[in-house]
Amino acid sequence: MPDLPPFAPIPASLPATVPFVGPEQMERERGRAFAARLGANELTLEPSPLVTETLQQAATDEARWYPESTNHDLIDALASHFGYHPEEIVVGEGIDGLLGLVVRLFMAPGDRAVTSLGAYPTFNYHVAGFGGVLETVPYNNDREDLAALAARARDTGARLVYISNPDNPMGSWVAHRDVEKLCDAVPSDCLVLLDEAYAEFHTDPEAITPPGFRRPNLLRFRTFSKAYGLAGLRVGCAIGHPNLIAGFDRIRNHFGVTRLSQRAALAAIRDEAYLTSVIATVAAARERLADIARENNLTPLPSATNFVTIDCGRDGDYARAVLREILARDIFIRMPGPAPLDRCIRISTGSDAELDLVSEVLPEALKATAHI
Amino acid sequence: MPDLPPFAPIPASLPATVPFVGPEQMERERGRAFAARLGANELTLEPSPLVTETLQQAATDEARWYPESTNHDLIDALASHFGYHPEEIVVGEGIDGLLGLVVRLFMAPGDRAVTSLGAYPTFNYHVAGFGGVLETVPYNNDREDLAALAARARDTGARLVYISNPDNPMGSWVAHRDVEKLCDAVPSDCLVLLDEAYAEFHTDPEAITPPGFRRPNLLRFRTFSKAYGLAGLRVGCAIGHPNLIAGFDRIRNHFGVTRLSQRAALAAIRDEAYLTSVIATVAAARERLADIARENNLTPLPSATNFVTIDCGRDGDYARAVLREILARDIFIRMPGPAPLDRCIRISTGSDAELDLVSEVLPEALKATAHI
Repeated sequence: MPDLPPFAPIPASLPATVPFVGPEQMERERGRAFAARLGANELTLEPSPLVTETLQQAATDEARWYPESTNHDLIDALASHFGYHPEEIVVGEGIDGLLGLVVRLFMAPGDRAVTSLGAYPTFNYHVAGFGGVLETVPYNNDREDLAALAARARDTGARLVYISNPDNPMGSWVAHRDVEKLCDAVPSDCLVLLDEAYAEFHTDPEAITPPGFRRPNLLRFRTFSKAYGLAGLRVGCAIGHPNLIAGFDRIRNHFGVTRLSQRAALAAIRDEAYLTSVIATVAAARERLADIARENNLTPLPSATNFVTIDCGRDGDYARAVLREILARDIFIRMPGPAPLDRCIRISTGSDAELDLVSEVLPEALKATAHI
Repeated sequence: MPDLPPFAPIPASLPATVPFVGPEQMERERGRAFAARLGANELTLEPSPLVTETLQQAATDEARWYPESTNHDLIDALASHFGYHPEEIVVGEGIDGLLGLVVRLFMAPGDRAVTSLGAYPTFNYHVAGFGGVLETVPYNNDREDLAALAARARDTGARLVYISNPDNPMGSWVAHRDVEKLCDAVPSDCLVLLDEAYAEFHTDPEAITPPGFRRPNLLRFRTFSKAYGLAGLRVGCAIGHPNLIAGFDRIRNHFGVTRLSQRAALAAIRDEAYLTSVIATVAAARERLADIARENNLTPLPSATNFVTIDCGRDGDYARAVLREILARDIFIRMPGPAPLDRCIRISTGSDAELDLVSEVLPEALKATAHI
């Protein structure tokens, strides 16, 4: 009988890590469905009618055909939309998929990457997955500390620095001029990754990285998973210098973005009126969530995203208890991992009905944790 | 001004290879659309009505939600369907995506992988992409030579051996007992990859690897891209020992298979009547394609797939000329790359209308190449 072949050294050294446990898995473990899904910062609105019509047509007409391997039409539309040339854009299976490719393109085993302590776990997962070493810098006043990130990159000779603006999980933001300074302050062989998953929700004009902004050591990341409401379809893009973008073609899964995803994303980007209405709906829900927090004597942090991070006013053990009580009342939410961010819980901007439920459940959860 | 950060050593060494040029890109370069799309072995039938209804519903109801990260329901259905336990199955973004993960899991830079000369380019692409070294063995009489592949694996200490059964691009097949022998004959740390993308079309019962067949050093790959007609949705699975399957969770993109793909694949696997009718339709089209070849004094190779590989009876230059003439007449087809396979062209089993066109165009193409 043959043996079980061993893994290669890097995968052999990895833990069986999963960046996130999904709500469906939690439902199976709980044995009960959630009544509101407010933990993954998904949009709670249906996609644009233009998108659903396109998908319905493509389901019949095109599901049998492989995707268009260059994402040509979508890249053309993204280029116009974001103020770039097509050769400055690569489309991939969400920002998650693109981050994996970026780590593989730029980091050899043992190389360093810098991120904020408590920032996006999937970036950290990819760094570990390719044998990289992660350097973390604390948040400063619930914001990413770009000067400290740059300093750490210089101290460690890092190849990558990852930031998100607006930030997840805190909902905060940094000024665009500080992103520019970061690009100038990192070592000459270091690439800055600017994750703009939530950028459509920016509230402060100073925070917006303008269309067509270019630095040779900067990659911008955009997604259809948030404001466009297409998280289930896995489409994102990276924007940067053509020589860097060309590198993705050496390693990417050329037929990896589904044909329906390509069609849906193209329809989504063309429906600007829908995007405008989504942004307004999300802003209103964000205000209401903040009001609900304040009514319960909690502190909503300022947010430029489709979620509100709520300071529970005490330590991590307390916030985790509040989270458990909310989950037990069938609302799926999440919270930041490390201290001091873990004094907070994070709730996505739900529909009116979902926020009614939050407003009902939150006082109960706080009452249930009053003894702590 | 910052510099352009360099790639890591392995990606820096890679060419800007693309495993396949897609038909849409060829259409852009030609400046004219194809009238028939018979080059990628896609199904020319619409998916099962159960699938399209499911997709149409999911487009409205679920596009905004991230995919279920464990592919739980689909894996359960696949486990029943193929005779395995759920922990023996991992779902990924088509076999293409899974092959990338397998190479990453098992090959360190400089490790060897063995394949047949002229077999699946995407496997070769992934091997090169992770710094592996490819060893190729010639086909024997248009079939993969499993004994020679095993011998080469032993001679080179290979970590992976890749075969497909039925085979692409030749349409041929090997006996299941020879697959068993291959598993027994490779080195103890070598994994056998059995790509069964076309397995639903098997014509010889002896060639079928039975449900529930297990070897600790074997991974089977199945897909929804061929007989299920869902190439555009990118869903496939790998089946093997639970310890190997668990390894994928260390490195895969956990939310990478789209939610619509999960729904569509689950609906597809439940519609057995549709699959039966597809297999009959494809068998009839295969016969007709073979007849068309014979009517033109060409030799159709026996096929257990949804394509027919046609021996043009002369050398590679001649077959490439025939291919060019067929492309020029607006039928998208492909052909094998290296000699002696390149004496053939490969045509997917099209619809009646598409095969009418083949029957019209093939004699013209042969006439146009008569001077060679």
